[in-house]
Amino acid sequence: MIRSIIEGTVTNVKGFEVGTATSGIKPSNSADIMVLHSNKDCTAAGMFTTNQVVGAPVELDRITLKDNNTAIRAVVANSGIANACTGDQGFNNATKMQEVASKSLECRPNQILIMSTGIIGPQLPMSKITKGIHNAVNNLNDNGGIDGAKAIMTTDTIPKYFAVNIKLPEGTISIGAIAKGSGMIHPNMATMLGCITTDACIEASRLQSMLKIAVNKSFNKISIDGDTSTSDTVLLLANGSSNISCTEGKNQELFQKGLNQVTAALAKQIVKDGEGVTKFVTIHVSGAPSIEQAHLVANSIATSPLVKTAFAGHDPNWGRIIVAAGKVGVAFDPKLSSLWIGKQTDEIKIFNNGTPSDYNIEIAKEIFSENEFYVHLDLGSGTKEISVWTGDLTTEYVRINSDYTT
Amino acid sequence: MIRSIIEGTVTNVKGFEVGTATSGIKPSNSADIMVLHSNKDCTAAGMFTTNQVVGAPVELDRITLKDNNTAIRAVVANSGIANACTGDQGFNNATKMQEVASKSLECRPNQILIMSTGIIGPQLPMSKITKGIHNAVNNLNDNGGIDGAKAIMTTDTIPKYFAVNIKLPEGTISIGAIAKGSGMIHPNMATMLGCITTDACIEASRLQSMLKIAVNKSFNKISIDGDTSTSDTVLLLANGSSNISCTEGKNQELFQKGLNQVTAALAKQIVKDGEGVTKFVTIHVSGAPSIEQAHLVANSIATSPLVKTAFAGHDPNWGRIIVAAGKVGVAFDPKLSSLWIGKQTDEIKIFNNGTPSDYNIEIAKEIFSENEFYVHLDLGSGTKEISVWTGDLTTEYVRINSDYTT
Repeated sequence: MIRSIIEGTVTNVKGFEVGTATSGIKPSNSADIMVLHSNKDCTAAGMFTTNQVVGAPVELDRITLKDNNTAIRAVVANSGIANACTGDQGFNNATKMQEVASKSLECRPNQILIMSTGIIGPQLPMSKITKGIHNAVNNLNDNGGIDGAKAIMTTDTIPKYFAVNIKLPEGTISIGAIAKGSGMIHPNMATMLGCITTDACIEASRLQSMLKIAVNKSFNKISIDGDTSTSDTVLLLANGSSNISCTEGKNQELFQKGLNQVTAALAKQIVKDGEGVTKFVTIHVSGAPSIEQAHLVANSIATSPLVKTAFAGHDPNWGRIIVAAGKVGVAFDPKLSSLWIGKQTDEIKIFNNGTPSDYNIEIAKEIFSENEFYVHLDLGSGTKEISVWTGDLTTEYVRINSDYTT
Repeated sequence: MIRSIIEGTVTNVKGFEVGTATSGIKPSNSADIMVLHSNKDCTAAGMFTTNQVVGAPVELDRITLKDNNTAIRAVVANSGIANACTGDQGFNNATKMQEVASKSLECRPNQILIMSTGIIGPQLPMSKITKGIHNAVNNLNDNGGIDGAKAIMTTDTIPKYFAVNIKLPEGTISIGAIAKGSGMIHPNMATMLGCITTDACIEASRLQSMLKIAVNKSFNKISIDGDTSTSDTVLLLANGSSNISCTEGKNQELFQKGLNQVTAALAKQIVKDGEGVTKFVTIHVSGAPSIEQAHLVANSIATSPLVKTAFAGHDPNWGRIIVAAGKVGVAFDPKLSSLWIGKQTDEIKIFNNGTPSDYNIEIAKEIFSENEFYVHLDLGSGTKEISVWTGDLTTEYVRINSDYTT
């Protein structure tokens, strides 16, 4: 088996095509509608925000997938307005998008999944959206993946996409993906949208469990600002065009690895393009009593404004890391804790069993000046560990979010 | 009974005096040692950080108060270095501060409480500290309260103090206080220090329970950045100089009200002087199933970077408020939720039972441009409510915390 990264996206997978359009929702007047279409029915899986407040598209997709996860034909997305906190009218508008697309694509409404991202509160301008969907369907093409990645951007500065080919004795399976997300990014998926396509044959329930594993190892490990969103959605469509099956004991493990690689790549792209982010930091927490507690501590470090401003300032003010670890109610003995930082993992030890080490401050500053570095905190209170990915908190983040339009 | 605010501080209370000194810990070479001394033994109460990682002074004060909460004579504080994450040597240094002060003040070491605030990690320069304590004791005076408030400042820009007199038929009781704190400020007390003095006669256990009530209504309701600290400490000393007792049914309620007023005033001063803060916002959450859940939701709003940057940008992007409420796992139905904002409470309704109201955006912008305003979210899922106080998140916050020295 050879797994190779290809410069690709959702449309590098056989049988998928993307069309985009500018409906005029965004003040910038850039593309804001994306239609991702498969020429065959797809099994489908979805994972959604854990926020109590969810956008109408999330509500609708949950219903659609419950009703039909074996014959999905398309994903229709808009950027600019999230269609969240919009009451009954919002839900009706999401349903309308399904209907408009189903007529245009000549399929049933429950074969269409919907995604919306952008400002919370306003209603969608439905006549613009309707026209936009028709236009996007009219320019569907098997080269449209990158344009699709652009059409779902909000405060993102670069389109995000990734693809792999998995060469098997019986042929090649492809997995392609696009994603967006740069603010409201926090474990449990954040203001992010992701569409993943594959030409493997995988039954829907297996697809769902594989998506869950991949998301937990990727999108649920990242944090820009600790804010989860109403709209977080990752969809995975499998159209079976390769005629290669993935079942237990047969290709499933290889597919899972490929899927994990795709979601991890996109998650990292999202952190690196995080609002105002200039650094990519891996926070590794070990020695925890449980995975959940390791995750709580890691997230507390990854979302602490004081830690993240220290990253931004190239300032190895490591006390803030210890303090952030201590604030979430996970019991550990600081006298058994140790801390390392480095360009690679565990390069220099800063804090050793509760006492500062005799480390070289100049080297510590150098590490914090890198674009990518590692922070490793061992709590000395167990055997469980986890890594999460985060960025720094800069004045640029504040500027972007103070100015973001109402 | 008349309760009157006086332009005063800890030394406006009979029998208390303060001395300060510059030991040279701070690069700015401003005063960094404070000694607060009572000419009579005091009953004493203390509340401390809930962080798992605590500074040596917190560890030592807990031991001291357990051993002796009926004959405290002084509080000795330094700013510049927090003496946290400093291992056994740090604890020994805190003990040394107690010993040095006890010799200088001619009392027992267990009559002295210690507070340290500043950078985490470095050891205290003990010869400087020793000299500083002697110098501060040498200039003890009953006019030193404001200088004391200055000597405990770190990134604070203004000294914080407040005092009230309570006129009773049998005479007057005074309560005076100083505090510091401007970063790492979060419910459960943050990087803050507070000293409260009174000349009332109150037994120690009663003092402790009254302090707890006052702190829960004030310092535990504020949030600058969601980071709690290793050093948070509020101490309350009662020296009985007024010869007026506060016991159940006799003056206790009046004293509690005065104490609440003092701690609330200081908590507000701390938020207003928060790092980079330009606005004071009251977040009121009602309609919650329990007080704890109301507090969780209120804190989630008060610490959300997206909410706080919207405050900074005068941007009534209220969707972020709803989303922050939804992310902490408190179950509520958005379709029963409503949101108001105003210069006074409940001025205009923005969101009504799950749907945006037809409000005037210009008025909303005007409200968010005020220095002080109110946000009220009703979850429609119960009868419990709470208010917390917070500020905005500005580029100045990031600048201060990126630059703060290591």
